[in-house]
Amino acid sequence: MSYQAPVKDMLFNIQHLAGLETLTQQIPAFADFGLDTAAAVLDECAKLTQDVIAPLNFEGDKNPSSWKDGVVTTTPGFKQAFRAYAEGGWQGLVHPAEFGGQGAPKTIAAACAEMLQSANMSFALCPLLTDGAVEALLTAGSDAQKAIFIPKLLDGSWTGTMNLTEPQAGSDLALVRTRAEPQADGTYKIFGTKIFITYGEHDMAENIVHLVLARVAGAPEGVKGISLFLVPKFMVNADGSLGARNDAHCVSIEHKMGIKASPTAVLQFGDHGGAIGTLIGQENRGLEYMFIMMNAARYGVGLQGVAIADRAYQKAVAYAKDRVQSRPVDGSVAGSAAIIHHPDVRRMLMTMRSLTEGCRAMASTAAAAFDAAHHHPDAEARKQNQAFYDFMVPLVKGYSTEMSLEVTDLGVQVHGGMGFIEETGAAQHYRDAKILTIYEGTTAIQANDLVGRKTARDGGQLARAVAGQIEATEAALARRDSAAARAMLKALRASRADYLAVVDFIAAQAKGNPNVAYAGSVPYLMLAGNLVAGWQLARALLVAEDMLATDPAFMGAKIATARFYAEHILPRTGALRAAIVDGADSVTELPLEAF
Amino acid sequence: MSYQAPVKDMLFNIQHLAGLETLTQQIPAFADFGLDTAAAVLDECAKLTQDVIAPLNFEGDKNPSSWKDGVVTTTPGFKQAFRAYAEGGWQGLVHPAEFGGQGAPKTIAAACAEMLQSANMSFALCPLLTDGAVEALLTAGSDAQKAIFIPKLLDGSWTGTMNLTEPQAGSDLALVRTRAEPQADGTYKIFGTKIFITYGEHDMAENIVHLVLARVAGAPEGVKGISLFLVPKFMVNADGSLGARNDAHCVSIEHKMGIKASPTAVLQFGDHGGAIGTLIGQENRGLEYMFIMMNAARYGVGLQGVAIADRAYQKAVAYAKDRVQSRPVDGSVAGSAAIIHHPDVRRMLMTMRSLTEGCRAMASTAAAAFDAAHHHPDAEARKQNQAFYDFMVPLVKGYSTEMSLEVTDLGVQVHGGMGFIEETGAAQHYRDAKILTIYEGTTAIQANDLVGRKTARDGGQLARAVAGQIEATEAALARRDSAAARAMLKALRASRADYLAVVDFIAAQAKGNPNVAYAGSVPYLMLAGNLVAGWQLARALLVAEDMLATDPAFMGAKIATARFYAEHILPRTGALRAAIVDGADSVTELPLEAF
Repeated sequence: MSYQAPVKDMLFNIQHLAGLETLTQQIPAFADFGLDTAAAVLDECAKLTQDVIAPLNFEGDKNPSSWKDGVVTTTPGFKQAFRAYAEGGWQGLVHPAEFGGQGAPKTIAAACAEMLQSANMSFALCPLLTDGAVEALLTAGSDAQKAIFIPKLLDGSWTGTMNLTEPQAGSDLALVRTRAEPQADGTYKIFGTKIFITYGEHDMAENIVHLVLARVAGAPEGVKGISLFLVPKFMVNADGSLGARNDAHCVSIEHKMGIKASPTAVLQFGDHGGAIGTLIGQENRGLEYMFIMMNAARYGVGLQGVAIADRAYQKAVAYAKDRVQSRPVDGSVAGSAAIIHHPDVRRMLMTMRSLTEGCRAMASTAAAAFDAAHHHPDAEARKQNQAFYDFMVPLVKGYSTEMSLEVTDLGVQVHGGMGFIEETGAAQHYRDAKILTIYEGTTAIQANDLVGRKTARDGGQLARAVAGQIEATEAALARRDSAAARAMLKALRASRADYLAVVDFIAAQAKGNPNVAYAGSVPYLMLAGNLVAGWQLARALLVAEDMLATDPAFMGAKIATARFYAEHILPRTGALRAAIVDGADSVTELPLEAF
Repeated sequence: MSYQAPVKDMLFNIQHLAGLETLTQQIPAFADFGLDTAAAVLDECAKLTQDVIAPLNFEGDKNPSSWKDGVVTTTPGFKQAFRAYAEGGWQGLVHPAEFGGQGAPKTIAAACAEMLQSANMSFALCPLLTDGAVEALLTAGSDAQKAIFIPKLLDGSWTGTMNLTEPQAGSDLALVRTRAEPQADGTYKIFGTKIFITYGEHDMAENIVHLVLARVAGAPEGVKGISLFLVPKFMVNADGSLGARNDAHCVSIEHKMGIKASPTAVLQFGDHGGAIGTLIGQENRGLEYMFIMMNAARYGVGLQGVAIADRAYQKAVAYAKDRVQSRPVDGSVAGSAAIIHHPDVRRMLMTMRSLTEGCRAMASTAAAAFDAAHHHPDAEARKQNQAFYDFMVPLVKGYSTEMSLEVTDLGVQVHGGMGFIEETGAAQHYRDAKILTIYEGTTAIQANDLVGRKTARDGGQLARAVAGQIEATEAALARRDSAAARAMLKALRASRADYLAVVDFIAAQAKGNPNVAYAGSVPYLMLAGNLVAGWQLARALLVAEDMLATDPAFMGAKIATARFYAEHILPRTGALRAAIVDGADSVTELPLEAF
């Protein structure tokens, strides 16, 4: 089997870190989603992703989606797999029952999303983007838009896209030029070119619902003049049936380093008279709505980082157990042994494992905060959880994806020369992963968010509150006497001190010396992500020690993994702190002309 | 221009760090290779690599070498470029004049090799392997072998290969099974399969000289029973003319993630009666000779790391100056600005630049030690330099190639979404670089060498002597009052302390607790490489401060780059020390069955 869903680790997180039972008790809407349901859902999802979707991953790399005369044909098997996915009800898992969804908590759905992404990142991008479109419609769509479009998106008849980027407008959406002309009937005609549109054209569903950022004539300059439009590939009649082909056409798809099976479209709107769209929400509030969609997608991309890291890890473990080469340095095996006996191979595998588990735990905790933020009956609890979730999104997105580059690199490295040969499959993960630190906002964009909106705006208050929670975990660790708890306590304490020094520095500098604060933005994100993921593994360690007798193998492994993270990963925060606090000037010291 | 050779930086290193003038004064053979000659050679090499070879790099990725019926056709243009390279005398640059070479010091030749690798890594692998074959023949070949083969290898008529790997024998050469049967005429018949043979078959030269590891019947088990054979593609007559086709055939080439234009051959020896080979040196000493070849190649691969990093850096700088996106956080530009104005883009470019310059400086210093080790009239000087060079080889190979992964990753990242599109070219560097930490001995193999032969064997004496030299540089820094010198002193001192703690730890543990010592092998290599590269930049900083008035722009940039390295890169040693000294147990704690 090429992929084995880590159901047990996921359920451990859902139960002990995300606290599903508390959620189901406190939130009436989730009353039916207890641990048994979670386990059943995860098992079903594991079957689908392992048996149906994972086997298509390598195929998608060899036979990518292709474009001809405006039509995109996806990898053989994708269409059938998408039907199986849709018919299983997976697209609606996290969405409201009134539109055909199942209303499951994100705490459960996130685990399923990770499985899907592990199985096949190229494939899974289609559902990921559809989720974003649903999210935006739920937030800002009219009742009619919701009623017509959401059910079709949830049952897999149609899929959704996000149309932000234009050739001159990537990270900088102020530069969007696509224009929308109001028509007498209340619709708009859309004219412009959008690039990098994931699944902007494909053959897996009968219609594609493009959500498009554009400017209405006379709108203010910059991001405050951008509106969001719903532009379907085929017009939709009032009864939901399909009408005429809209003037939105795929003129090419990109030739990419990875995720080759996922078609990345250049879409041309309005070359033949104007693409017909309807406004979502109010004019000039498009960016605000798009951010809702984007925040969901950012979290989802963070999960992709965890997912591809896990897939690479599983592949590396299998190879390391199989490949026989050289005698172990400790003489424990007389002749040549499987390379997993060599300490450096173990170090690589443990690095991969601990980073993956740490980021998975972080994402799981964030998912619970999302659920409470959206559904908790108490307004104050909603507010606090929302703040925590908002703080976590750039960490989940930025840190988990950056770590996936390290993990997929190690995945190739464990394979030695075979890793560089495409038929082995390890190289695909290395190539696929590199998009993750770029799309849905580069790591730098996530870091700007962390510095600006999440840290400087409130003077570092929220960031310090997170440190306070970590301190509480340290206090619990201090009451233990195990080597693992001691190692974790020492590392967590040091890293929290690094973090607090940086938070103080960033909060103090952001307004007066923005160059100084933003010079350290990505190192700050990496520091915070490292710490928060380590903190979750510390919480896991405490639980695992308590439960050791119930399941010695699993709990013992959890403890060993957490300890490895404490001793090998957490200490990295020291160099980041030094770079941020002592090294800001040297970032911008070299004059432009010297480059 | 897609590549601009960093001639000025190279000459700075050659003069001020490698000390070419001292070499030419002390070593009679190098009397004609003063700074003026070096400058002239580098300028010529820059022209060839920039104008002729660099433009073929992207083409090689699009149109890789291809195999049909045993024949390999290289990328269009490669053949002509190889002729230009050979006719310019570049293959013989570093080799003895008596065989048609120019006898230049490695101190100069290394800079040329870097240019060639920057221009086109796939192309440059052919000369790199030929250099290795020449090196092995010079060391162990008979007079007849030398006289017949070396001149043809140096004038580019023929090229050389290294045949080590077999499907079951990668890092572990004890498992080599290819066999050699002695014939009555003193030749041997060779039978076996070799894989991963770089330029094992191609159309750029009229003959290919395979150096092949094989076992003579009755030889001892393991690495002590391996001999080295010369097996030409076409038999060679006594007068050097070509004879019959030998029984060494390319049955396929690999489909790789990168360096696609470089054909990686599976060679079948002896399927049609036996490939005829002649012994090089003595029976059963093959591995020893191969190590000579491999040590040259390892240094060369380290240069490839520097080279591809520089190419990626240059590309990223060009894009960052050109791409306009978003307003600078400090308000220094009213509207959207070139992204090089953004602090995080600067941080990425400075990271790329300082790592590249640091590793280039390290390689340059090592080259000077090689020259003195081989040619110094004083035996003690030769011995000391050889020891220093031997210590440097795993650092040059391991650290420079690992850093090239970070640099090529950042190279893609600076390009944002465009970086993931193959037509941009940044992705090629990311894909190409990944082979560097694998071939000619993975990073772990380099690290084993560093731990075993270079550190534990003499109880850490040599490693501590290097720290002593670094301390002398610190003393010089302590006499300066600039911010850059203070920053460098602080960082160097802290990193040297980390290094010494690790050397003590490794030296103490290697024999009694090999798992503990080798668990930290790669982190130790990364720590030592980081420190030694930083030390060279510290030396450069001292020179640049002294010469600031003579060339403010260049020397100022050198100082700023060194300072960035001090503040952002050197502090990473702390986490490595912690992982090695405190974290050894957790590397192997997780039992095998838990993976």
